[in-house]
Amino acid sequence: MTIKLSSTESVQKFFQEASGFNNDQGSQRMKKLVNRILLDTVKIIEDLEVTTEEFWKAVDYLNRMGARGEAGLLVAGLGLEHYLDLLLDAQDEAVGLSGGTPRTIEGPLYVAGAPLSEGETRMDDGTDAGTVMFLEGQVVDADGKPIAGATVDLWHANTKGTYSYFDTTQSDYNLRRRILTDANGRYRARSIVPSGYGCPPDGTTQEVLNLLGRHGNRPAHIHFFISAPGYRHLTTQINLSGDEYLWDDFAYATRDGLVGEVRFTEDAAAAKARGVDGSRFAEIEFGFQLQKAPTAEQEAIRDRVRAEA
Amino acid sequence: MTIKLSSTESVQKFFQEASGFNNDQGSQRMKKLVNRILLDTVKIIEDLEVTTEEFWKAVDYLNRMGARGEAGLLVAGLGLEHYLDLLLDAQDEAVGLSGGTPRTIEGPLYVAGAPLSEGETRMDDGTDAGTVMFLEGQVVDADGKPIAGATVDLWHANTKGTYSYFDTTQSDYNLRRRILTDANGRYRARSIVPSGYGCPPDGTTQEVLNLLGRHGNRPAHIHFFISAPGYRHLTTQINLSGDEYLWDDFAYATRDGLVGEVRFTEDAAAAKARGVDGSRFAEIEFGFQLQKAPTAEQEAIRDRVRAEA
Repeated sequence: MTIKLSSTESVQKFFQEASGFNNDQGSQRMKKLVNRILLDTVKIIEDLEVTTEEFWKAVDYLNRMGARGEAGLLVAGLGLEHYLDLLLDAQDEAVGLSGGTPRTIEGPLYVAGAPLSEGETRMDDGTDAGTVMFLEGQVVDADGKPIAGATVDLWHANTKGTYSYFDTTQSDYNLRRRILTDANGRYRARSIVPSGYGCPPDGTTQEVLNLLGRHGNRPAHIHFFISAPGYRHLTTQINLSGDEYLWDDFAYATRDGLVGEVRFTEDAAAAKARGVDGSRFAEIEFGFQLQKAPTAEQEAIRDRVRAEA
Repeated sequence: MTIKLSSTESVQKFFQEASGFNNDQGSQRMKKLVNRILLDTVKIIEDLEVTTEEFWKAVDYLNRMGARGEAGLLVAGLGLEHYLDLLLDAQDEAVGLSGGTPRTIEGPLYVAGAPLSEGETRMDDGTDAGTVMFLEGQVVDADGKPIAGATVDLWHANTKGTYSYFDTTQSDYNLRRRILTDANGRYRARSIVPSGYGCPPDGTTQEVLNLLGRHGNRPAHIHFFISAPGYRHLTTQINLSGDEYLWDDFAYATRDGLVGEVRFTEDAAAAKARGVDGSRFAEIEFGFQLQKAPTAEQEAIRDRVRAEA
């Protein structure tokens, strides 16, 4: 039976008290947010006749999710992280900020402090027998002029689709690097072609996706933070052409303008000339266009708790 | 600036897809719940202009909360567990179920499988030099007739306000027992007077309470599950008279009809007669009245993930 208590004066008063409205300590912002969340929660309970069993399953889920640190993965999988991009896009549009490489989600697997080099770098530690990938490109401004000294902070998965730091079998900062662009605004990296990421099959994110009839796979992709003095910080990624999940990404990160075309070469002589064993290697050229920062604040990445090795 | 995307057709469609509406696998119930939660979440983000920094703080909070297993404590502290009691009361009233001892919250610290005895028991392991407490009472039906063989499953904190199992310095099942009522429906326990519980000061629940300007204390109390064949399972607790937090419980568990009057005696002879060292002891008499179970299902406790030692 449907019982509606949430709109009664006594329940409204009760949650005002629980939200700290009756005292003048603490944070007014927090009180407002908590009160809204509580009232919306009880409205959901009443409207959808959530049982106590369902409620306690959700509480247990939150404990298990947090114990695995999967909250960031779940909000990506449920589309909330992509939604935030849509919201930022709309906010930009409303103030006439447009152009440049599109933003897309960061995901929960960044690690701060990767090795920094100038112009070029090698990202893999040589232990993963994947296809060698040569990745390069140019960072330019709104007029297409190169930005020298921009920081290209990039990270990607190995051939198993797992990330160093979180996958403790990989060496420190494997497949994570920061590169300062050269005088022509260019960065160059030698690495290995990543495989797509899949949610841990025994994890709490996949548990929800299964109940929603959804898979938990991403196409192969490479994450980027691009920053330079005077320009807006850009969080984005390139998703690799040819991947079966390219437009069926469980985290909704693929966007127009962010598909990286991978060219494979089978040529022993060409391979040897580039220092590659065997005859096969891959190349990706991908550049980034930054917007001018209207305020210095926008040069910096948005705050988020991030791992630091 | 306020941007409202949540009501646009494209965002509605996006969250339908994210909620699994476009496939016929999984759970229809889960899809409905998740979609509602997602849409309410983005409405909160838009209405209260939640920043990306606030959003990611919340995500990080969920990880830290779960890592500590504090989701059950938070929902008690924010009043949601008490609200569920109000909802169950209203549901009972709507179908004419009334009378008997009021229900109140279980809290997150029950452990299944405590030692079982007949009629009486000693609950403490003798290591806590608290005031000895003699607790007894009668379990009766709606007509006041004793119920023999009812299970009184009770648990309480020590003099530091902590619970065995969660406080690993205590012995197994310390201050946790199950007692079958005797032929007169009576149970008797010797234990120690508990102290009030306080949220872990370094925990995630206290973190939120601080931001709400609220304390995280409970009055001294004793938890009970009372069950017997043919009767509705009762989850309740008695909160002890004289405690400064009796009517200022951070978890809102104190209710009319659930205050336990503690009588302290200072009398060496009386103490000796009851086998107590020293001259001081406490007594509480508290009985329970059960409702007839309209269905066999209602004899059982409601499902919730619970600890089992």
